Amino acid sequence: MYLVKVYVMYKQSVLDPQGEAVKGAVHRLGYSEIEDIRIGKYFEIKVAKSETKIETTIEEICDKLLANVVMESYHYEIQEVS
Amino acid sequence: MYLVKVYVMYKQSVLDPQGEAVKGAVHRLGYSEIEDIRIGKYFEIKVAKSETKIETTIEEICDKLLANVVMESYHYEIQEVS
Repeated sequence: MYLVKVYVMYKQSVLDPQGEAVKGAVHRLGYSEIEDIRIGKYFEIKVAKSETKIETTIEEICDKLLANVVMESYHYEIQEVS
Repeated sequence: MYLVKVYVMYKQSVLDPQGEAVKGAVHRLGYSEIEDIRIGKYFEIKVAKSETKIETTIEEICDKLLANVVMESYHYEIQEVS
């Protein structure tokens, strides 16, 4: 079994409206030392071992479903758990 | 300057409907080896150094704004970048 952690974020060139909104709220709460906030999606995926290479499976799922590859980029970490 | 990575997830005892929905979609795409998917929010926060301890600032912001502490739990990683 693998535990795969996937991080999906807006590309650097894309404005992150949610991040801007949260940054505004944080500043209104008085935390002026917060300089930037970027928000993304985080997935923890348990994958049973199979013939297919785990990287291939994860990248296909990310490209097809988890990330909008036009505006978002993703990276992942694979841990073998059993 | 610090770069703080915050991970907010549903507590284990809480059903993750989004995760279940994505798992269903992944299975319909033919990836039957996917056993579980849990989805959370991921924040990258840049924080200028100040008198307040960085951990205090981050935990206050998480408790007040980033996480619904009744249903969600969070953890964070702090990197000093400059």
